[in-house]
Amino acid sequence: MKTVKVSNRLQKVPASPIRKLVPFANEAKRQGVKVYHLNIGDPDIKTPQVMIDVLKKWDQNPIPYGQSQGELKFLDSLTAYYNKLGYEFIDPKNIQVTTGGSEAISMAFFATCEVGDEVIVFEPFYTNYNSYAMVNQVKLVPVRTYGKDGFHLPEAKEIEKKITSKTRAILICNPSNPTGTVYSKKEMDMLVEIAERKNLFLISDEVYREFVYDGKKHVSILDYMKRIPEKAVLLDSLSKRYSLCGARLGMMVSLNEDLMSGVLRVAQGRLSSGFVDQKVAEKLTEVTPDYFEQVKKEYQRRRDVLYDGLSKIKGVFLEKPEGAFYAVVKLPVTDANDFCQWLLTKYRYKQSTVMLAPAAGFYASPGLGKDEVRIAYVLNVEDLKRSIEILTHALVEY
Amino acid sequence: MKTVKVSNRLQKVPASPIRKLVPFANEAKRQGVKVYHLNIGDPDIKTPQVMIDVLKKWDQNPIPYGQSQGELKFLDSLTAYYNKLGYEFIDPKNIQVTTGGSEAISMAFFATCEVGDEVIVFEPFYTNYNSYAMVNQVKLVPVRTYGKDGFHLPEAKEIEKKITSKTRAILICNPSNPTGTVYSKKEMDMLVEIAERKNLFLISDEVYREFVYDGKKHVSILDYMKRIPEKAVLLDSLSKRYSLCGARLGMMVSLNEDLMSGVLRVAQGRLSSGFVDQKVAEKLTEVTPDYFEQVKKEYQRRRDVLYDGLSKIKGVFLEKPEGAFYAVVKLPVTDANDFCQWLLTKYRYKQSTVMLAPAAGFYASPGLGKDEVRIAYVLNVEDLKRSIEILTHALVEY
Repeated sequence: MKTVKVSNRLQKVPASPIRKLVPFANEAKRQGVKVYHLNIGDPDIKTPQVMIDVLKKWDQNPIPYGQSQGELKFLDSLTAYYNKLGYEFIDPKNIQVTTGGSEAISMAFFATCEVGDEVIVFEPFYTNYNSYAMVNQVKLVPVRTYGKDGFHLPEAKEIEKKITSKTRAILICNPSNPTGTVYSKKEMDMLVEIAERKNLFLISDEVYREFVYDGKKHVSILDYMKRIPEKAVLLDSLSKRYSLCGARLGMMVSLNEDLMSGVLRVAQGRLSSGFVDQKVAEKLTEVTPDYFEQVKKEYQRRRDVLYDGLSKIKGVFLEKPEGAFYAVVKLPVTDANDFCQWLLTKYRYKQSTVMLAPAAGFYASPGLGKDEVRIAYVLNVEDLKRSIEILTHALVEY
Repeated sequence: MKTVKVSNRLQKVPASPIRKLVPFANEAKRQGVKVYHLNIGDPDIKTPQVMIDVLKKWDQNPIPYGQSQGELKFLDSLTAYYNKLGYEFIDPKNIQVTTGGSEAISMAFFATCEVGDEVIVFEPFYTNYNSYAMVNQVKLVPVRTYGKDGFHLPEAKEIEKKITSKTRAILICNPSNPTGTVYSKKEMDMLVEIAERKNLFLISDEVYREFVYDGKKHVSILDYMKRIPEKAVLLDSLSKRYSLCGARLGMMVSLNEDLMSGVLRVAQGRLSSGFVDQKVAEKLTEVTPDYFEQVKKEYQRRRDVLYDGLSKIKGVFLEKPEGAFYAVVKLPVTDANDFCQWLLTKYRYKQSTVMLAPAAGFYASPGLGKDEVRIAYVLNVEDLKRSIEILTHALVEY
């Protein structure tokens, strides 16, 4: 009997470098080994209690579909959030609720590109952009950034070199996952000018907006939205902001009416985002500013612990991250993938080990990032210190 | 300044015929008009209390990401469900949890087809297949079925006529949304033989598996899964089975290892389905059989009320649906879309009206279904009777 073949495009979807080592981690745990997870940005910070209380007080039955654009009250809460940040021109009609920031990114590729069109990204970039690009049959064209520059952007002419007749958009992540870079006003001005000059969408993934350290100011695409209303697209998520990773809620925000009405039609096809999650999240207006202040202080502390600890290890290099809760770290190994797998399968330090994400999957150019890992500093300071201790010993033994 | 254009493929995504009239319904409600929703399969049946109790007893904080394949306990619950149905060969590794049945359908198109490949569907079909096809750049090739035959399948040769070198799969919905048709063993045998002969995937959307009336037996793709292990793909959802529409949980089930490992990589890209929803749904093993018996009895009663009521209206035609909770109904109007809009904007009967889904969007062939609507009989018998009364009067006045 003949056998059917799955599609080539399915076969080309890469395994997530954040998650592909999970089976090895599970096996280590079955052996009673404690695994410190620095591989994934799944914070231990508490979800605001006012949100958890929505679950405890739940009295709605059945659990119905939500509205395709997003539940009305949730859209109002999101609007209030943006208005309070100073973007008073944002109205519920400019917001599409998505099932995680993931869906927002995927929709952005679909909405701005035909099959085979190109999007400029700055590598290393959030690895899952690769999956969404493959799912939407879009080509990511990487512009390289360097650890020695804190992964800041090159000059405009370096970026423009990569723009072809097929380029439809520039996509940034700001603050950046995986590098922790926060782009300056000068960098943002430059990108906006390129978008204007080359007639491109400028898509900004600002999932980590609140996580900017050392008193630095975050410059948002929202600051340019009235200047380039048709070109500016904000991708956003509640996952990190409120420690709601499992709630799968994100947003696309834009003043481009064609874009928003088209994306709503796509959203109608998948009916709605989670109803319970939206009811939980609509309480975001009741989260007090001190929640963010404490969270930010905590992450800054962790960042300092990570930076100070790793900087002391021979052969390890990283710039101090300016935001988010990640760092791309150069290790004294030739293949970080092998090293990460070895940590999970072979290495034990006091019955424990660490899980890291090999950085090669965060690059589009073959061969880059082979000696780098992405580290998420989402563990508490004590666990983080222990993780650094384990890593220090492991690098000696490897 | 030049303006950017959204993609052609975005512009081609159709508005949902189930949801596109929502703004008119909202406006009617604002005017104090009671709108009976027969447009959408959003049941009033209660979610099992054992599931709601998970929310009330919630004590986990933060709300973390789930596993990409699905939470382990939830996968175990789903496995137990299929095993109990008699499909003991189903193992957690054969199941991918999806964010609603919607995501399962979209993944199935992506996984089986390249851009431009074709999938055979039987029209009228679930309208959102159109959206997923556009999102995945797949062409739906419709084989027509007829109300006078209860929308049952034509002979094999009629189906095979539509198969080309680009055909990769046959997709059925059984019991069918929107027609309520339940395919016989003979029809399923025929489809399996075509899939074998023509080397195609056979994808079966069985979201309404439990909703089969008059003692009829449902023949599942699972009955053929060991015969065509690489070709058979089950798409499933908890939305209707447990009145969990807003929980956004579905499944893809297959013995095809290439398919399942590829789909898992796609799933890793979007991280996980909702964590809270999965915790709620894992309680499905504690739902007692009498829940389904009562639900089924209730729907059969509603179907009878709908069928008897509508059959009495002059010029209205429908066959008695065998399953699910929908009927495609022929109305004595020339344009059902205009009629549905008129019901919401102009027509009032005792300060109330009904919302229906125009059926044209459930066909791929232009011009078909123009005088038909899809009716979801998800309201209680009293509301259903009132809806039929309103519709009867409206058709006289129109």
